[in-house]
Amino acid sequence: MSVLPDETHASQLTSWVEGADGHPDFPIQNLPLCIFSTAESPPRAGVAIGPMLLDLAAVADAGLVGGEDARILRTAAGRTLNSFFAMSAAQRLRFRHILSQLLCAGADPPPMLREAVVDAATARLHLPVDVGDYSDFFAGIHHAATAGRMFRPDNPLLPNYKHVPIAYHGRSSSVCVSGHPVVRPVGQRAAHGATEPDYGASNRLDYELELAIWVRGGNALGTTIPIERAGAEIVGFGLLNDWSARDIQAWETQPLGPFLGKNFLTTVSPFVVTAEALAPFRSPQPPRAQGDPAPLPYLQDAEDQSHGAFDIQLEVLLRTAEMRRSGLAPHRLARSSGLDLYWTPAQMIAHHSSNGCNLRPGDLFGSGTVSGPGPDGHGSLLELTSGGRNPAVLPNGETRTFLEDGDEVILTGWCEREGFARIGLGEAKGLVVTRG
Amino acid sequence: MSVLPDETHASQLTSWVEGADGHPDFPIQNLPLCIFSTAESPPRAGVAIGPMLLDLAAVADAGLVGGEDARILRTAAGRTLNSFFAMSAAQRLRFRHILSQLLCAGADPPPMLREAVVDAATARLHLPVDVGDYSDFFAGIHHAATAGRMFRPDNPLLPNYKHVPIAYHGRSSSVCVSGHPVVRPVGQRAAHGATEPDYGASNRLDYELELAIWVRGGNALGTTIPIERAGAEIVGFGLLNDWSARDIQAWETQPLGPFLGKNFLTTVSPFVVTAEALAPFRSPQPPRAQGDPAPLPYLQDAEDQSHGAFDIQLEVLLRTAEMRRSGLAPHRLARSSGLDLYWTPAQMIAHHSSNGCNLRPGDLFGSGTVSGPGPDGHGSLLELTSGGRNPAVLPNGETRTFLEDGDEVILTGWCEREGFARIGLGEAKGLVVTRG
Repeated sequence: MSVLPDETHASQLTSWVEGADGHPDFPIQNLPLCIFSTAESPPRAGVAIGPMLLDLAAVADAGLVGGEDARILRTAAGRTLNSFFAMSAAQRLRFRHILSQLLCAGADPPPMLREAVVDAATARLHLPVDVGDYSDFFAGIHHAATAGRMFRPDNPLLPNYKHVPIAYHGRSSSVCVSGHPVVRPVGQRAAHGATEPDYGASNRLDYELELAIWVRGGNALGTTIPIERAGAEIVGFGLLNDWSARDIQAWETQPLGPFLGKNFLTTVSPFVVTAEALAPFRSPQPPRAQGDPAPLPYLQDAEDQSHGAFDIQLEVLLRTAEMRRSGLAPHRLARSSGLDLYWTPAQMIAHHSSNGCNLRPGDLFGSGTVSGPGPDGHGSLLELTSGGRNPAVLPNGETRTFLEDGDEVILTGWCEREGFARIGLGEAKGLVVTRG
Repeated sequence: MSVLPDETHASQLTSWVEGADGHPDFPIQNLPLCIFSTAESPPRAGVAIGPMLLDLAAVADAGLVGGEDARILRTAAGRTLNSFFAMSAAQRLRFRHILSQLLCAGADPPPMLREAVVDAATARLHLPVDVGDYSDFFAGIHHAATAGRMFRPDNPLLPNYKHVPIAYHGRSSSVCVSGHPVVRPVGQRAAHGATEPDYGASNRLDYELELAIWVRGGNALGTTIPIERAGAEIVGFGLLNDWSARDIQAWETQPLGPFLGKNFLTTVSPFVVTAEALAPFRSPQPPRAQGDPAPLPYLQDAEDQSHGAFDIQLEVLLRTAEMRRSGLAPHRLARSSGLDLYWTPAQMIAHHSSNGCNLRPGDLFGSGTVSGPGPDGHGSLLELTSGGRNPAVLPNGETRTFLEDGDEVILTGWCEREGFARIGLGEAKGLVVTRG
């Protein structure tokens, strides 16, 4: 596992691709993967470099590298990224070095390499992976505490929270790439505590700001992934919006958890920012509070303690129909960080497989709503408006308790650190519409 | 949708395949599908007929039928049954008629057809479908009431139970075919209400007797499957054991529901008994109790009320290591019926898609634990032993609170009705072992 920055992260590294150097998301230090199509070509794997996409199949066909490197490029160049996801951490690192060498400034790039670069503006981005199983964690402790406080003011966190990386299974079929319309769900609705439902369109539609964590896994059913090896099973990160219909969710959730209140749509960003790209932004686990229990041994590892957290900045932005009409830019509703998670991705993987559950390349984890500790950190409207009781006032005077038709929610994320190039996760966005 | 018996269900219908007539599970009136392999051939689609399997690809290759019939056979003859599952209800019905005609007694069957028949004893059975998403319902009302009574003696059923077909998402990756070993899961364990966990192998390992319901779906994300069309989306039935580690489950389940307590294994039977085969065993919805609310309109349909329930007999059997050593037959722990479900499969499909969630061909529903109303109807040890307080005594003097290593649990199911041939679902079994 590569937890330390190397020459591919050097801030002075530049690319021959125009617009890559200084790109806020995709300089040569990032090299995230995606699946894209164009008017001329069906979906295929690509790597973002500045405003362009490098077509991996075209690079593999060009024969610019040989031997094992050629095999690695060919494996990455599929119709989905699942075969890339199945590669080992060492192969992923080698992939990063191959790409960095092909794209860095220096000798004139060969014509076949130049021709493998496509303008991202002409491409359509697809879901990067065939998602096997999608598991949604609950590791954002400020979200868990704020949401818990609404129901249990004196005891917001349940007794298991600081022992168990709580998660539940979500729906694979409705995981969509950024831009998919958010069709307002219809269903049985009731406020929390009600004993009779009615039926209709949700009027408490909400977003949840989460990190998407893409994993490799590959453990056979009945075997585990120990915490010492779990870090190497993180393939990469993206943004995830766990859209939630709070009225449907409140009524259905006992005793087996969320279902129709969540499974109408989950939006992920198109780019997989690799764990290797994030080496400079690894961080020690945030210190635990006085009195917090030590994690059980199966969740403890020295390397995970010193490097297992990811310092990724997160934001959620809202642009209403009225704001679009007035030409106003999206308004930031909240900001938070990957360091606001109580459990690391490696702890999530070790926990998920601790009972022998098999993880497969292309499985998706949601981190849980990442909220910051302060009043500007609420990762959902549930928190921001205290369950709809305190409307949020937007700069143009509009107010929101929950989402209205025409609202567009945009999640963004990036990493910054002195001495390193900024790299970004891109966006996960969705526009709320009512079923026609 | 074919809800009425036709000539393929006639009890006097016989087959030229030896051992088919009077077979307790697979006479010519059943014709369930499976995926099988032999020493000579990789996994392929088959139809059970008595003690034999008909190789569908071989039949398709033989050119015994033409035109649309040939296309239907070819579609069914895949590496998995997913393409069969994607067919329309009318195509599935046609498939049944083609198979019934090929296999019924009469003129001498052509040699190529005879050669397409394989001895099931020489075949290995596989998971019949690549499961997209697995959703587990909670429709067994006697189970819900008995389990609820342990925690809420005065109010066993939650207020939503008779309004909402409650379900949660389960794990696709760990759905395995009958016979897969049940590796006792390890994890954080605590009794209900405890505030500190320990870590180790589950000592409250349980089974749950459920029906597997295989669905077609195919609705686009954001669209629904109305109850009037939902019945046609049921492809078939099998048996499902929702293995449960009660100690892991109790500690993790709040606030988001079951996770590691369930996702270490789900066992399904290998045969998909089609909805068409079950036409004679359709039944009116069981009458609701006095004071039960009427289902909301999106869950109401006249045909579903008159034909939407399935009168399938279910049993769970236990054979311990000691019983095997003594040559004792498995002991029946409980029996119940598909009529013990509060919601029909069509209501489950209409509910699941009511928020726009897309269902895909090969999705799997669990019915929820099917317990009967009486003391011989407990579909789990949780119920049978009152949460481990009252051990069950087996005929050889052994006792059980929860499952022990070496225990084999066998689920079986069948349908019987005066004037019709008995048809069976086969078995879903698993032997408990401890991780090596």
